[in-house]
Amino acid sequence: MSQTPLFLDACFGRPTPRTPLWLMRQAGRYMPEYRAVRAKADFWEMCHTPDLATEVTLQPIRAFGLDASIIFSDLLIPLPHMGFEVKFLPKEGPVLPDPIKTVADVDRLRPTPMREALECVAQAARQIVAELPQSTPLIGFAGAPFTLASYLIEGGSSKQFMKTKAFLHQHPDAARRLFDRLTDAVIELLQLQLDAGCRAVQVFDSWAGCLDPEDYAAWGVPYTQRIVAAVRRPGVPVIVFAKGTGTYLDLVAQAGADVYGVDWTLPLSKARALVGPSAALQGNLDPGRLLAPWEALRPAVDRVLDQAGDGTGHIFNLGHGIYEHTPVDHVRRLVDHVQGESHRWRGGR
Amino acid sequence: MSQTPLFLDACFGRPTPRTPLWLMRQAGRYMPEYRAVRAKADFWEMCHTPDLATEVTLQPIRAFGLDASIIFSDLLIPLPHMGFEVKFLPKEGPVLPDPIKTVADVDRLRPTPMREALECVAQAARQIVAELPQSTPLIGFAGAPFTLASYLIEGGSSKQFMKTKAFLHQHPDAARRLFDRLTDAVIELLQLQLDAGCRAVQVFDSWAGCLDPEDYAAWGVPYTQRIVAAVRRPGVPVIVFAKGTGTYLDLVAQAGADVYGVDWTLPLSKARALVGPSAALQGNLDPGRLLAPWEALRPAVDRVLDQAGDGTGHIFNLGHGIYEHTPVDHVRRLVDHVQGESHRWRGGR
Repeated sequence: MSQTPLFLDACFGRPTPRTPLWLMRQAGRYMPEYRAVRAKADFWEMCHTPDLATEVTLQPIRAFGLDASIIFSDLLIPLPHMGFEVKFLPKEGPVLPDPIKTVADVDRLRPTPMREALECVAQAARQIVAELPQSTPLIGFAGAPFTLASYLIEGGSSKQFMKTKAFLHQHPDAARRLFDRLTDAVIELLQLQLDAGCRAVQVFDSWAGCLDPEDYAAWGVPYTQRIVAAVRRPGVPVIVFAKGTGTYLDLVAQAGADVYGVDWTLPLSKARALVGPSAALQGNLDPGRLLAPWEALRPAVDRVLDQAGDGTGHIFNLGHGIYEHTPVDHVRRLVDHVQGESHRWRGGR
Repeated sequence: MSQTPLFLDACFGRPTPRTPLWLMRQAGRYMPEYRAVRAKADFWEMCHTPDLATEVTLQPIRAFGLDASIIFSDLLIPLPHMGFEVKFLPKEGPVLPDPIKTVADVDRLRPTPMREALECVAQAARQIVAELPQSTPLIGFAGAPFTLASYLIEGGSSKQFMKTKAFLHQHPDAARRLFDRLTDAVIELLQLQLDAGCRAVQVFDSWAGCLDPEDYAAWGVPYTQRIVAAVRRPGVPVIVFAKGTGTYLDLVAQAGADVYGVDWTLPLSKARALVGPSAALQGNLDPGRLLAPWEALRPAVDRVLDQAGDGTGHIFNLGHGIYEHTPVDHVRRLVDHVQGESHRWRGGR
């Protein structure tokens, strides 16, 4: 058997004896160990303090033995260094007090050498890699330009992305300048994580699903293509997850990535038809299902495994970050089941 | 040519000389006439005062000559009469101060004769119908049980519907009891609007898109089926709009409705393939596109017309309610363009 970690084999579509899994936002409030750290430091401070980021990144690996680790950080981490303050208010999520409102504001976004600005992220990655078992690769990540732009323009989270859409449609040239600068920053941020020892990277376009297919073709595809091409290294998979884009996953798959994330609204069998045979798929249990008792949860987990065919080229995950109120015991049963039983899907069922 | 209104012909898939259109939330804040009424009464009061509901319902018909009218009301209007107070707080949207938290709370939802409780809705409908031209049918509407249940359980709007999913998965029997009661109320509410002169009804499952296909099959399909069957009358189309369900629109189309709403993430040509040939489609311009200048908006409108084939069985609409900051002039150009030019798509392009 290969010495390559299961997770990396699956990302490259190589046969694996069972399905590897990790969980988006696996370091999170649902874990008592995490809440103990969080009680002493705020979220943003945790992101910027390598010892704290290392500690919470490792917690779910120690607790559940997941097949990949993802660095504890936040999509918005490059923005303050580029000139846009970010505050995390209790219960409100991120707030940017001085967002982009005009074309001129785009030029307030300063190109900044991420390597110096975010040395704390590199240091955390190095520390985490030093502690992880060799079989557990560390994933670095960044937000896609559209998702970052939406925070810069809305000034925080949004439901309808009205201001962002107004800006893109009314000022397309300025928006392209904005997206180009964000793309440069994202590439640098991913490179520094790879240089620090990450063995895979994931690009999160968390809010892309608010776009129609033509807007995604204009504001998603070209930028993920450029990012994927720029960070490609031998043996290092690139994962693109554009949540809510199941109706045009074929467009998302133009990014040239090795793996595509899939949310729970699209069965993996249909995702496979849209993505084609050459990329791996990551997903796609509804995190809401993890609130269900095991008798109800187990058939949903098995359905995901069923829809992944014989399991080759499948990394089990959720379709979005795990919810705060998820019982730890449900996570443990999920992990044990996928790790202990998914071999039975090999060779087809 | 038939004396039947264009909108009704299109709902039943009969050929029309051009594409009819109306706009979800067409009576709304983007109109100065609406804001003038709203300055003197709050939203909830407007929903319950027939003269005010009549006035704002008619405003967009007078201003733009749309091909259908929809009664000004709110999805939550039956809930206070069933025992759950609803408040509309400024900038927060609806809040239910005492939501469903336990299985026992389900029985606080009282079956109530909607006909008496909501005579104000019937009266508004009668007044509106008396004022509308014969060629402009009035659409009545109600929320689907899942969407209503989500407000009852979350206590208001939500992004992730975590409490709702926890309730459905942990207490499926109680949830079915809840959904059955809501279904009865929805049917009564739609019947009373039809009796008052509405010539079509639409069921809004606004938040169904947070469900995976299996949950939609359990918590969407059986209830929309029951509603559609119960309110069916000759010559009166039933429209089902389950926003965000483009990846499983084939499931939505099991409702047996005459028309399915489609949001902007799924091109109408793909929606047609999922729904089959026998139902009409309603949609599907991104309301965000209405913020664009006409040079950018027009190609997007034409793309919707292109994707509707020769236009038979298509009602032009947005993929969600119109945004508050939409320029009135953009709406006017959209309406003039669809009404003035869509005949050119007839016979194929």
